[in-house]
Formats: sequence, C-alpha cells, structure tokens
Amino acid sequence: MSVSAVAADRSVCVPLPVLGRDVLVPLVTGGEAVYAALDYAASAPALQRVWDDVAAYAPYYGSVHRGAGYLSQLSTDLFENSRTTIADFLGCRADDQVVFTRSTTDSLNLLAAVLPQGTRVFVFETEHHASLLPWEQRAGVEVTYLNAPRTHDEAVDTLEKALAEREPCSAGDSVKSGPALVCVTGASNVTGELWPVRELAAAAHAHGARIVLDAAQLAPHHPLDIAELDVDWVAFSGHKLYAPFGAGVLAGRADWLRSADPYLAGGGASRKVSRRTDGGVDVEWHTTAARHEAGSPNVIGAYAIASACQALTEAGFDTLVARERELIARVRAGLAEVPEVKVLSLFGDDAPRVGVLSFVVDGWNSSHFAAALSAEYGIGVRDGLFCAHPLVRTLLGTDPQDPGECGAPEAAPGERSLNAIRVSFGAGTPDEHVDRFVRAVKELVTDGARWNYRTEDGRCVPAE
Amino acid sequence: MSVSAVAADRSVCVPLPVLGRDVLVPLVTGGEAVYAALDYAASAPALQRVWDDVAAYAPYYGSVHRGAGYLSQLSTDLFENSRTTIADFLGCRADDQVVFTRSTTDSLNLLAAVLPQGTRVFVFETEHHASLLPWEQRAGVEVTYLNAPRTHDEAVDTLEKALAEREPCSAGDSVKSGPALVCVTGASNVTGELWPVRELAAAAHAHGARIVLDAAQLAPHHPLDIAELDVDWVAFSGHKLYAPFGAGVLAGRADWLRSADPYLAGGGASRKVSRRTDGGVDVEWHTTAARHEAGSPNVIGAYAIASACQALTEAGFDTLVARERELIARVRAGLAEVPEVKVLSLFGDDAPRVGVLSFVVDGWNSSHFAAALSAEYGIGVRDGLFCAHPLVRTLLGTDPQDPGECGAPEAAPGERSLNAIRVSFGAGTPDEHVDRFVRAVKELVTDGARWNYRTEDGRCVPAE
Repeated sequence: MSVSAVAADRSVCVPLPVLGRDVLVPLVTGGEAVYAALDYAASAPALQRVWDDVAAYAPYYGSVHRGAGYLSQLSTDLFENSRTTIADFLGCRADDQVVFTRSTTDSLNLLAAVLPQGTRVFVFETEHHASLLPWEQRAGVEVTYLNAPRTHDEAVDTLEKALAEREPCSAGDSVKSGPALVCVTGASNVTGELWPVRELAAAAHAHGARIVLDAAQLAPHHPLDIAELDVDWVAFSGHKLYAPFGAGVLAGRADWLRSADPYLAGGGASRKVSRRTDGGVDVEWHTTAARHEAGSPNVIGAYAIASACQALTEAGFDTLVARERELIARVRAGLAEVPEVKVLSLFGDDAPRVGVLSFVVDGWNSSHFAAALSAEYGIGVRDGLFCAHPLVRTLLGTDPQDPGECGAPEAAPGERSLNAIRVSFGAGTPDEHVDRFVRAVKELVTDGARWNYRTEDGRCVPAE
Repeated sequence: MSVSAVAADRSVCVPLPVLGRDVLVPLVTGGEAVYAALDYAASAPALQRVWDDVAAYAPYYGSVHRGAGYLSQLSTDLFENSRTTIADFLGCRADDQVVFTRSTTDSLNLLAAVLPQGTRVFVFETEHHASLLPWEQRAGVEVTYLNAPRTHDEAVDTLEKALAEREPCSAGDSVKSGPALVCVTGASNVTGELWPVRELAAAAHAHGARIVLDAAQLAPHHPLDIAELDVDWVAFSGHKLYAPFGAGVLAGRADWLRSADPYLAGGGASRKVSRRTDGGVDVEWHTTAARHEAGSPNVIGAYAIASACQALTEAGFDTLVARERELIARVRAGLAEVPEVKVLSLFGDDAPRVGVLSFVVDGWNSSHFAAALSAEYGIGVRDGLFCAHPLVRTLLGTDPQDPGECGAPEAAPGERSLNAIRVSFGAGTPDEHVDRFVRAVKELVTDGARWNYRTEDGRCVPAE
C-alpha cells in the first residue's frame, strides 16, 4: 500500500491508537465487524502507548518505598515521578498534593472524608452520582442540592444565590460562615456539555467557598489547568483517560488533606506506631499524600495514568479537541436528519461539548436500540440513566422524583422513554466508527431491528 | 541442551515462572547480575501466566455492567466470573460475598467501616498496621490490643481471656454482650510464622465473636479455606498474590456488609436516586457486593487475581508448600552457620512458616546490609520495621513503646539494631536466588561490604 493510500484510509487514522482497534465481534446477521467502541464515557480502551509503557515496565515491577533492591528503587522513582508528571499535566500549584485513589468516585469520597466538621456542600442535581452522593454520607456535613440550570449564566446565578443565603444576614456581622465546598463537573457524562468552571470557581471563592472539579469526562478530552481555572481540587479516573489499570487521582490544596484523619488506616500512611503504657496504640501519620494512600500503592495504575498524560500532552490538546469537535459535529449532523431521534441537552445546541452525547428514539426501547447497535453493527454504546438519575429524568421530561433505576422496564410504545442511549468517543476513535453509528441509527429507525432483543424470556429471536 | 540438562538446571526450575526473571541489574563491583527478587512479602512479581492472561484480555477491555456492546458484555462476564473463581479459591460458603477492594489494607478498612455500632475489636499488637490500625479510626468501635504471645497456645489463651472479660459477669445474666470482632493474621509479614487460625476462630465463636483473617501473606503461599477454617471474613491483596494490578479482596459474611452504609458513595453502588420534594436526595443502595464497590471496577485487577488463583490451584498447593518449605529450610540452615545473624521469631524454630524471614546482623546497620545485598549481589530485600512497629520492636528487644519510625537512624555499632532485614520468596523463586542470598550474607559478614552505602551526605563511596 502506498503512503497516500494509508493517509487516505481515514478508518485507521486516529490521533492516538488504542488497544482493541482490530477486534472482530460476531454479528447476529452472520459474519463479523471490527468492534466500534463508542462507550468512552464509561471506560476508554487503553492507549497503545500506555499498554506499551506498562508492558515495558512490568518485568521491572517491585515493591515501592522501603525495598532496598534495584527494582524497588526503580519502581519507587517511577511511582513518585508519575505523581510529578500528573501534577504537571494538571497545572498544579507548588503546594498542591497529588493523591492516588482508585477512581474519581474514590477521589471524591476521599475529599468528602477530609471536609472539616460543619462544611456546607453545594452541588447541582445534574451531577454524576460520584459527585452527587459522597457528601451526605459524612457526619457533620450538610448538602444543598441545586436545581438543574438551563444556561451557563443560570448555573452561576444559582450557585451565587445559594452561597449568599448561607452567609450572615446582617451586613455588619463579622462572624464568618463555616467552611463550604462547591462540587461541579467539567463536562457532563450525559450530554458532554462543558460547565462554566472558571466562573463557578470565581463565584465560589467570592463567597468564601472552595470548589472541586469532577474532571472524569473533562481531563481525557480537554486541556485542564488547576491554577488557571482556579479550582481547589480536581478528581479524575485513569480508566476514562485511556489507562484502565485501577487508579484515579485527587489533586489540589494540601491543608484539608493534611489535617484530616487518614482516609485508610494502615502501613504507608503511618509514620510511627507504638504501644502506650495504658495498652493502647499511638500513631503518628504522614502529612504528605501518603497519609491517604495506606497499603501498597498501585504502581502500574499510577504509571499508566502518567503515561496517558504524557501521550495526550505530546499529541497536543489543540489537535485532539479540534478532531473531537469534528466527530461531534458529524454525529450531531447525522442524528439531526432523523426526526425520531431526540438529543438530550441542558445548555442547547451551541454549548461547547466533548465527545459524549445521549439521545432517545421515538417508539424505541433504548435497551433494545442499544442491543441492536451491538448485535447488527458491532457498535458498543450504553443505555440507561448513566449514574445520573436526576439529570436524565429532568432531560427526558419524566419525573425527576421518580426513583426509577438503571435497567428498569422501558416505556410502552408511545410513552416517554425512561432510559436513554449514550454514544461517546475520543482520541482512539476512527471516523468510520462514528459514520457506522450514524448509518446504523438511520437504518434501524427506517428498517427496524432484524431481531427482537431482550424478549420477556431473555432469548433473542429474529424479528417477524 | 538435553532434557536432563534442563532438569538439572535448578536455577530456572520454578513452580510458576514470573515476570522479571531475566532482568539484569548493575552491580557496584562492575558487571551485572540477574535480579534476585527476595521481597515477595512486600509485593510479588506478576506470574507470567497472569501477565499473559491480562495481555490477552486487554484488547477486549470494555466498560462493565451497563454497556450494551459485545466487549462490555464480555468484560462484565469476565469480571463477575473472576468473583466466582476467587470465591472457589477461598472455599467461600454459598452466602458469602466477595467484594473487590484495592488491597488488604482497603479490605480491612472496609470491614472496619461496616462494623455495627458498639463493636469491640480484639487484635494482637503483633499485627501488620493494616490489621492493627483501621479499627480505632471508626467512631463507636472500641479496640483491645493483646500482647504478643510466644506460643500458639498462649495466643488462644490470651484471646479467650480477653473475650471472656467482656462478657456479662453474673452467670445468670441473659443480656448478651455487644458484637465483637477478632482480627488475626494467617502468616506474619515479619517472621513468616503461621498463626493458629482455626483455634482462634473456634475461641472467637465460642465467645460470640466473629473473626477476620488477614491472609495477605497466607493466601499466596498456603491453601486456605474459609469454611474449613471457620473464619467469617478473609482479606488479601492481588499484588502479593502475583497479580500486581491494584485490586484486593474482602470475602465473607454478607450480613454486616449488607446492612451498613456503602463504603464508597457513587454510581454502581446506588440502585435508585431521586430528588425529594423537600429538595434532598433519596438513595436506594444495592445489597450485593456492588454496595461497597462504587465507581467503575478495576476489571483488569480483579481478573488478574482470578488468573493467579487458578494458576496456584493448578500448580497445586502441596507442591508449592513443599518447595517453599525446602527453600525456607535452606535459608535457615545457611543463616544458622553465621553466628552474627539473629533470626526474629515469635513462636520458635519449630513453628510452621511461609517463605518470609527477618533478621539482624550483629555490628551491621540493617539498611547498610540491605543496600550491600542489592549493590554487590543484585539481591532485593527489605529493611525497616515492615509496617509492624510494635512486633518488630518486641522481637528486637527494643522498647515496644518507642515511637521509632521506618528508616530512622540506625543503632551505633554495639547497640541493638533498631531495624531489621527481611528476605521473602515464593513460587517464582529459583534455588539460585536463595543460595546467592545465603552466600552473600556469609561473604558480607566475613569480608565486609566493598562500599559504604548511605553515608551521611547520601553518596555511596568505596569502603576503605
């Protein structure tokens, strides 16, 4: 094949190749298709580069921090250097800590655990459950849930109003309000829409509150700079950032982290342990990130994230963002041609977004539709409420107070759908995948599915 | 090379080959040596089999539980089947839960978090910090620390006495004592000695207490059957079980797990989330293992553990235990020929043990000794207090109330050592590694180190 032929073959031309790009999956219609992984928002495939780095390191894996051997020293350096690489990737301030966790969920639960007593948390109902739910689990923390805004301005206004209400009423009152934290997502895991993080951070700080950014969907797709956004903490997951090896990150202000009880009690977090004369045990805990990282660290997971951060930086976010915008536009233009498709949106058509998009199809059960995309086209999407139940119910126009669950029985034909379908992609997605997806949606809506999926007795049978 | 020559080459004949077996490391004396990883007790290298399984799966990685695509379905099956494989490996009862965590430390912190209010915990001071420290961090939990026993019988007696003391004094008193939990290690991470788990479990149950087994050092080296030992929970780590991909396990009784608040709040753990009319949020949590596994699971980590469990089962623990005993005997016999070496032991020479052994060398700084083993022989061991400060201080005869820390300045020549050296090995250790280790100890004690390691200014310089 000539060089120009390779360049012309857009199906293999992606900014960052991922594992699984050649995987064939069987189709119910017979034959096979190259799997189109379009569920990046749930979990992205590993970058080839990340895998290669992990594979090159794996034989050199060794215990970190206290091992005297060569591989232990090497692994300790690799682990601590990964922290530095990630701090650089996030634009951390000099005194920020980078704590390794297992995921965004874990990171936000860690932050919830270190909140000072009496902290008031402000969070929009539109958040993923990972950023919606950890706060109320903590004793001594009060949570204010803010209604879904429909514009960026409304988001800022809503937050400002709520923060103002907590402040002392009398103008001359010198008593400061207690600590407050705002938690907001950078990009919605349902609509892909960006949130006005910088403006929300300014509002939070103007009212003496701190702010944590849930960057699970933002960090893999968009440049992100803690200092420039002026957020206090950032949380994200390796597995959405092309590094699915069980690690996540909480990065930001050290003070609350340093003064709180350790998140996990155990070795690594404890600097000195001794029996007391009364039979008890005294512990002196570390004040570095290790304070909250008890147990042997996930060295491979941390290194994989650092590797992905380097790969994204080297590819250049300008290129990545431009290409992802092109793919989003392509999907949106294609779906716009199908009147039965309704795309879910909080901030409207012009809102800036990453490669995540949810929709429903008139007259279709969303699970059935997603199953057909898989079985007939080899396309992997997601259906359900995407761990953001109140938001999806708001967007679907169903009752946001309805305690429906993911995977609940679907609406009858003609009724409003109770679930949605989500398509999402990233730096490893070839044009062919999104083109196949758009074609598949059109064909399914026009021609119907060839099989009945998820029939009452659980079997798949050919459609009549 | 003929077949008999291969069989005779014991240096490459191991029960289960591991990654890194051919890694060469530089020596300060010039040249290189094949790295002898003798720090398995901290973290073991990955089995080649585990790596191969992970590598074969990696291109098929996909989001689990709600993805509709083929790779999501496959990954969900792989993840849930891993749970079953591990349950089988542990001999779980039908109604036990297998919860994926990030490590033993995380598993025991999880158990601490689900203890009913008012639980009294009983733990020997000899435990690793991971099993010593999580309990007192929980509000409403009271901890009794038990002194180091010097025989198995004394361990059981000590526990029985402590449990009896908590019970109502008057014989006719029908008021039951509150819930109680005993936490005990299966094999010490310092001495490698086995603990009388079955007897301690019987004692615990006789007094209405439950028991959790810290199997971090036991599971990789010894058959383990929850039902047969009659323990209520088992905790262990993947990274000590030849599967260093960031996952661990807590397995056992479902009731306390089911009725407690979720360990992490977020997606996956939450079944239904809805706004209340008063503006708050209602959550219905799962009652399966998912309740405590919020966030996207570490699929690769879980699968790696399952792969290691299968490899150990297929190799057969009879073979593994027999060979490890042979290696232990070899190391102990070799060290016994060096009068300057003092092996640390709680239960004496005849105690059954796994391949973990700690010692000090008269007249040597332990860190210096460990550094010499690495730099001059390519051997990786560990020095310090092994995250079991009270135990090591008891064994060294230093003050167990001394709040010394890992890596603290060492004793002056002639004083008692404040740190120890630990050598540990397993299914991937060739005879040559332990033989080289014994030879190195002898040579270092006889001839001294060729370099000064860790001098005051941090440089290594040739010895004079």
